Amino acid sequence: MMHILVLHGPNLNLLGGREPEWYGRHSLDEINQKLLAFGGQAGITIETFQSNAEGALVDAIQGAIGKTDAIVINPAAYTHTSVAIRDALLAVGIPTVEVHLSNIHGRESFRKRSLIADIVIGQIAGFGTQSYLLGIQGAIDYLQTQTIKEDKTV
Amino acid sequence: MMHILVLHGPNLNLLGGREPEWYGRHSLDEINQKLLAFGGQAGITIETFQSNAEGALVDAIQGAIGKTDAIVINPAAYTHTSVAIRDALLAVGIPTVEVHLSNIHGRESFRKRSLIADIVIGQIAGFGTQSYLLGIQGAIDYLQTQTIKEDKTV
Amino acid sequence: MMHILVLHGPNLNLLGGREPEWYGRHSLDEINQKLLAFGGQAGITIETFQSNAEGALVDAIQGAIGKTDAIVINPAAYTHTSVAIRDALLAVGIPTVEVHLSNIHGRESFRKRSLIADIVIGQIAGFGTQSYLLGIQGAIDYLQTQTIKEDKTV
Amino acid sequence: MMHILVLHGPNLNLLGGREPEWYGRHSLDEINQKLLAFGGQAGITIETFQSNAEGALVDAIQGAIGKTDAIVINPAAYTHTSVAIRDALLAVGIPTVEVHLSNIHGRESFRKRSLIADIVIGQIAGFGTQSYLLGIQGAIDYLQTQTIKEDKTV
Amino acid sequence: MMHILVLHGPNLNLLGGREPEWYGRHSLDEINQKLLAFGGQAGITIETFQSNAEGALVDAIQGAIGKTDAIVINPAAYTHTSVAIRDALLAVGIPTVEVHLSNIHGRESFRKRSLIADIVIGQIAGFGTQSYLLGIQGAIDYLQTQTIKEDKTV
Amino acid sequence: MMHILVLHGPNLNLLGGREPEWYGRHSLDEINQKLLAFGGQAGITIETFQSNAEGALVDAIQGAIGKTDAIVINPAAYTHTSVAIRDALLAVGIPTVEVHLSNIHGRESFRKRSLIADIVIGQIAGFGTQSYLLGIQGAIDYLQTQTIKEDKTV
Amino acid sequence: MMHILVLHGPNLNLLGGREPEWYGRHSLDEINQKLLAFGGQAGITIETFQSNAEGALVDAIQGAIGKTDAIVINPAAYTHTSVAIRDALLAVGIPTVEVHLSNIHGRESFRKRSLIADIVIGQIAGFGTQSYLLGIQGAIDYLQTQTIKEDKTV
Amino acid sequence: MMHILVLHGPNLNLLGGREPEWYGRHSLDEINQKLLAFGGQAGITIETFQSNAEGALVDAIQGAIGKTDAIVINPAAYTHTSVAIRDALLAVGIPTVEVHLSNIHGRESFRKRSLIADIVIGQIAGFGTQSYLLGIQGAIDYLQTQTIKEDKTV
Amino acid sequence: MMHILVLHGPNLNLLGGREPEWYGRHSLDEINQKLLAFGGQAGITIETFQSNAEGALVDAIQGAIGKTDAIVINPAAYTHTSVAIRDALLAVGIPTVEVHLSNIHGRESFRKRSLIADIVIGQIAGFGTQSYLLGIQGAIDYLQTQTIKEDKTV
Amino acid sequence: MMHILVLHGPNLNLLGGREPEWYGRHSLDEINQKLLAFGGQAGITIETFQSNAEGALVDAIQGAIGKTDAIVINPAAYTHTSVAIRDALLAVGIPTVEVHLSNIHGRESFRKRSLIADIVIGQIAGFGTQSYLLGIQGAIDYLQTQTIKEDKTV
Amino acid sequence: MMHILVLHGPNLNLLGGREPEWYGRHSLDEINQKLLAFGGQAGITIETFQSNAEGALVDAIQGAIGKTDAIVINPAAYTHTSVAIRDALLAVGIPTVEVHLSNIHGRESFRKRSLIADIVIGQIAGFGTQSYLLGIQGAIDYLQTQTIKEDKTV
Amino acid sequence: MMHILVLHGPNLNLLGGREPEWYGRHSLDEINQKLLAFGGQAGITIETFQSNAEGALVDAIQGAIGKTDAIVINPAAYTHTSVAIRDALLAVGIPTVEVHLSNIHGRESFRKRSLIADIVIGQIAGFGTQSYLLGIQGAIDYLQTQTIKEDKTV
Repeated sequence: MMHILVLHGPNLNLLGGREPEWYGRHSLDEINQKLLAFGGQAGITIETFQSNAEGALVDAIQGAIGKTDAIVINPAAYTHTSVAIRDALLAVGIPTVEVHLSNIHGRESFRKRSLIADIVIGQIAGFGTQSYLLGIQGAIDYLQTQTIKEDKTV
Repeated sequence: MMHILVLHGPNLNLLGGREPEWYGRHSLDEINQKLLAFGGQAGITIETFQSNAEGALVDAIQGAIGKTDAIVINPAAYTHTSVAIRDALLAVGIPTVEVHLSNIHGRESFRKRSLIADIVIGQIAGFGTQSYLLGIQGAIDYLQTQTIKEDKTV
Repeated sequence: MMHILVLHGPNLNLLGGREPEWYGRHSLDEINQKLLAFGGQAGITIETFQSNAEGALVDAIQGAIGKTDAIVINPAAYTHTSVAIRDALLAVGIPTVEVHLSNIHGRESFRKRSLIADIVIGQIAGFGTQSYLLGIQGAIDYLQTQTIKEDKTV
Repeated sequence: MMHILVLHGPNLNLLGGREPEWYGRHSLDEINQKLLAFGGQAGITIETFQSNAEGALVDAIQGAIGKTDAIVINPAAYTHTSVAIRDALLAVGIPTVEVHLSNIHGRESFRKRSLIADIVIGQIAGFGTQSYLLGIQGAIDYLQTQTIKEDKTV
Repeated sequence: MMHILVLHGPNLNLLGGREPEWYGRHSLDEINQKLLAFGGQAGITIETFQSNAEGALVDAIQGAIGKTDAIVINPAAYTHTSVAIRDALLAVGIPTVEVHLSNIHGRESFRKRSLIADIVIGQIAGFGTQSYLLGIQGAIDYLQTQTIKEDKTV
Repeated sequence: MMHILVLHGPNLNLLGGREPEWYGRHSLDEINQKLLAFGGQAGITIETFQSNAEGALVDAIQGAIGKTDAIVINPAAYTHTSVAIRDALLAVGIPTVEVHLSNIHGRESFRKRSLIADIVIGQIAGFGTQSYLLGIQGAIDYLQTQTIKEDKTV
Repeated sequence: MMHILVLHGPNLNLLGGREPEWYGRHSLDEINQKLLAFGGQAGITIETFQSNAEGALVDAIQGAIGKTDAIVINPAAYTHTSVAIRDALLAVGIPTVEVHLSNIHGRESFRKRSLIADIVIGQIAGFGTQSYLLGIQGAIDYLQTQTIKEDKTV
Repeated sequence: MMHILVLHGPNLNLLGGREPEWYGRHSLDEINQKLLAFGGQAGITIETFQSNAEGALVDAIQGAIGKTDAIVINPAAYTHTSVAIRDALLAVGIPTVEVHLSNIHGRESFRKRSLIADIVIGQIAGFGTQSYLLGIQGAIDYLQTQTIKEDKTV
Repeated sequence: MMHILVLHGPNLNLLGGREPEWYGRHSLDEINQKLLAFGGQAGITIETFQSNAEGALVDAIQGAIGKTDAIVINPAAYTHTSVAIRDALLAVGIPTVEVHLSNIHGRESFRKRSLIADIVIGQIAGFGTQSYLLGIQGAIDYLQTQTIKEDKTV
Repeated sequence: MMHILVLHGPNLNLLGGREPEWYGRHSLDEINQKLLAFGGQAGITIETFQSNAEGALVDAIQGAIGKTDAIVINPAAYTHTSVAIRDALLAVGIPTVEVHLSNIHGRESFRKRSLIADIVIGQIAGFGTQSYLLGIQGAIDYLQTQTIKEDKTV
Repeated sequence: MMHILVLHGPNLNLLGGREPEWYGRHSLDEINQKLLAFGGQAGITIETFQSNAEGALVDAIQGAIGKTDAIVINPAAYTHTSVAIRDALLAVGIPTVEVHLSNIHGRESFRKRSLIADIVIGQIAGFGTQSYLLGIQGAIDYLQTQTIKEDKTV
Repeated sequence: MMHILVLHGPNLNLLGGREPEWYGRHSLDEINQKLLAFGGQAGITIETFQSNAEGALVDAIQGAIGKTDAIVINPAAYTHTSVAIRDALLAVGIPTVEVHLSNIHGRESFRKRSLIADIVIGQIAGFGTQSYLLGIQGAIDYLQTQTIKEDKTV
């Protein structure tokens, strides 16, 4: 049975708490329930983890060795500053999808640089919590057809 | 009934033709059939168009006014050089999803700059032909829940 | 009798169509009528052409050889990306005025670079459709007094 | 009755003095007479001021509060170096047109940066002393139709 | 009663320990006592926290929701590298003052970039431990007169 | 008795005049009265000077030799363009505090560069007219404890 | 029998028309005759095509699949702006030589960047119409000795 | 007796675990044993510490005050992103050698910038686990002959 | 009889006043006497002028028309910020030598850019007050042998 | 009789020695024989020279004055670093063709800058040893038809 | 028996001559004796060479073909300017270690760029003459265990 | 008796040879005679040396130790590319004046960077062969009054 680890970076634990117009009406717990339900329908198991600490996210990636088929990660602020997370993903060699709730290409210029974008399967940004579901779907498709890579271009 | 226009940029008409390891085993026609089938299952109509000419793609975007609920576009080479396509998308004001077969963030550095990324709903890159399906799904989700934008952050 | 060619770049055919607060209340046809009337009052003939295609604009510039005394061009998006239009203007050697409806200096930073600004008589930007009339007036003044160039500085 | 202040920056007092091939055959006084005559024909009053001192130009802009409907300014060298003039224009909030005798886009690269271009109505460059007349005309048009802004784009 | 959280970033726990000519004669404890005394005189409560870990500082900022009227933060090294602290401050929406013991503008060039300077009320740098007291005073003033923002310019 | 010179740069004479939401409700005269009152309470004398001219501000700094214990300066626009003011401050060698009404780090990018920030005691920005009071307080503290510099770090 | 396609980019159709000192005394037709004659002597067939449209040049490159042994291309203005032509050359995989009439390294700085130079066999610039003949000769040599690549260095 | 602290940055705990062709055949424990043995032969004591957390590495550096004669550090990913580790090394003032297993100068361009290289005794990169032994040797030499610095140049 | 105008920029009036180790033991008056004496010996007349105001220096340059054979200018701080002084020198067309007391190439990086260096006869920097004498000598040599320019290269 | 000097830069003496897949199967002597034979057939004399020393290449260029009609130079590494060779070519004024064995546009980015490309007739790169023959042919064509320059454009 | 060539770049012949505090107390001869002694103890032969000429160093590297197992090079000034030395090292293919007496990362910014760092085994900088011994040791270790490369990472 | 070494860089041996309008009417020998005569009048000895080789110039600088009071150097092309000459001047510690025949600030942009300007007494550029005489005079003044440095500023 396929197993996917979903990692949430710093400040994502605030989702749904305050400022619903910005952080949405759903708490991170509710979103995680939605992801688990989606996994159940797709016949895969999903595990989630959130941390505000760069080192803890590195630990979580390392801990996935031998247990996880794919990682779906929203590194949030660490997208732009963490070489350590990049190195952890390179070291464990687990196929990874990068997701973002907002369209990072339309915000402050320093958010345009992702330190992991060039080493992941692909990147999905701008679809709100839906980004996670599209990312999990993309990871499943990738795993089911390793050969899909041959179809890829432009 | 929801209507989505899928636009393919220059050289995508070569898909499946030669060099299958790079351009895939499926021709653009086969891919378009797959998209139409996906649309049928989702209960929406899908229209596709490909051109090697920047001006023809601008014409196609302009022609979508009043007929199309969302655009899913893979501008290929024009992603990095066309302000005209950006201006056309800004002018028609139709919600748009940007997709790429390959992970543009892991190729030549000039491919990292997208001239439309900051004005679209979101961007999906790296999942081969699956990028189109994820993009259509993302567009449908967006249209069904205009309010989803409020859930978006980080 | 003096003859001036007015060229409109990509997406300017949408003027007056939708979004009047942005694209104005007047269609491109109405604007062209206004320009022709202005020409009539000034005792010159005016010809207008619009295209979304870079190559068609190059063709139009080439076609002006031997027929046109001055060109007034609003290259729109191609202002920032077309070396081909620059080369066409250099090749035909017809005095040219560059006009823009909006103040391009106050928009996205990539709009600050004009690939033709350094080879035209002058540039007029920010006066809405009035920019065209000021540009035609500037071209007429230039043609009437070739010697005006000597008055130019700072 | 509409009132427009025309400001001339440093070294423009040399116009027509020496080097006619560069500074023209007309002195600044003659040019100012031409502007006043143009104003008379247009039914508006025009006031002119020249200074080599940045602070004096700032004083003149501040002094226009409550007396002037629009400013037409050729900041000359201060175009590229004066944040103080920019701040003065921002503070008084009087609609302003920026003019240049020469085509600043075709000279030394440091002349391409204007510190006021993004906060004025529009910019006119390259038409010699005619630039002033086109600038006054543009200011009159702007004041007469505040709504013209809605017609502006690209 | 007004409540202010004072956050000390990495290595500030070494203050007063060694190298008095550089880190001062006062330990962080002594400084915190001084801040608490200042708060007592001003009739407000002050809470202090120091950590070498980026994640712990993010946690502390998140923990201030609903309990704190203003934050005074010296992010030390994280000033220049932490998008996570920026995002935490943006998320909690608590008015914040940025302080630095030394004049960061006169040190290594990478210290000139602050990742939070553009989202805080204001920045105070260069006054040694006095920077904290000036920062607390600035925060109190800000809270007492929300309208003070209207007085702000240049 | 301690003597502090407060210098106001260009356009600050407009404070409180027009546009109260931007320039505040208080005129520069009222602000200066506030500063003098603050000085009286602190047992020091305060002198103020405003000019729109770079040269006049240089003159004022030079004139402070032998008469002034510290300078508190808001160079406004000249913050970003005047090497002459920097050289004057370096030449007279009087301890100086740089203040700004607004948070210059959150405005146009050219406002992020201060040509004096690296040679002053410290910088205070973003607290409206309160910035002046905090700056005077910082200067007094500095003068009273020359040794405070040893407490400075990070 | 070896077949070579010679592609001429925008504005090259003006050769020999006007301004002989710049565009030469020979029309494009005359040049093409010269190339065909050279081909005849070398025992190969040569086909030529010119267009001002980027898309038409992409079409021509795509159309060469299966019919052409080598391409000799003078992309003119598109040298510096067309990723689409680069992608077309990459897609068809036909050995290509890049030629320029003038020495592009000695003109405006934006002409120094060629978007195809790193993916062609080689580049020849500065020899006028002779550049085409040298380019065809270089292509023939390349095709005759695939092993020549091993001789290549520095 | 001389005491040296060897610090291993993030992901170095994976050494020898998986992917031997990349991370080597030896685990971090085996490497640490090798270092301890080397220390024994050289008559010095060696202590090792690894962490994935930036804050924990800062803590470890601070903890070395008064106990350690020299630090040999491989900051791994934090080499390029941590000002906090730089500040900790500056604060404790213990002579430090920077080592890297791989040649960081021949990898991604962002790995060329080391935030500590300019404040350490020296840097050794590219010799695999041997880099640690050379680094320890270099630290011993440095400590034995403080005067060696005088021999240093170019 | 040859006439040379020596211009001193901002803050040079402080020479010899305070801080002799930096500003020298000689006042500007004493230096000017030295220059006049040198002129007397060389059989030329010398006139000197100092101002802290950019506009006053522009006025002085303009005032030299018809009266002065050469200008020797030390623009001090305005070297790096004044386009107005550059434009004045270009307008009057009087041969000019640029001098600096200190070696501007060995100070802050913004002092390396001179806005007049490319339009003067030559530049002399680093010889203290002797720079003025060498500059006057250079101007005399230049005037005496207009043909010397032909000897100039590399 | 026409005389051409062929200059080989540093490390080209290793051609054909070792690593045939990179440096080719032919030694520099064999290549030089090929060039001499080509010269013989074309009825011109050819002289060759190789050196690893920048100064010796400058000497060789200077020595060509009065003896050589054209220079064909492969400056190898000095292409990117030698202003002295550029200055020598400018000083002797002999028409020069720049050749490179490999396509320098497709290698390390520092190899894209040629310090002589803008002052030579033209540049030929990427055709292996054939680049020399094409370069000699280009030089002969240039000498035979000085007027060919008029045919040059784009 | 292993043979290592140690190359010293320009100005290293001055070591120990003058300015002992900067160039050390030992002459280059004494240092070379130390290296030879070290080689004797390690059972390898060591050869040394110094030159101030770039070409002579290229010659020396070329001369090492077939005679030398490894090169230890301190290119001194040529580290930052010589592509010819880089090309020579690439051409001969002999494993090379780069050493520097001083910590080049803590000096002028142009010394941070090494033109050979990315093509050598590794780099050692900052240990004075000890850098040579560590470099030789590193080269020996590398040669003894070609497989050590597999242990290399991060 | 004071002794000054005058060094001429590459291509200066061509002076007076050809192209008198560019390289002058005087040969290097004639210029050297002029310098020796000037030395004789000033009561000092002058020695001259020219080389096209960077290494030979480094040798000459090294050879000046113990024999020369000052160096006057025109490094010509090596001004912009030689770190080795910079290091030699730093190593010998002999006061040096940098001279240039032409105004290097008004030529190609790469000529604006001098690699020795920040370490010499001063720089003189633009006075033709007169630059050498002014440079020798400047060196004499410097040596005669070591204290002159105290007079230096701005």
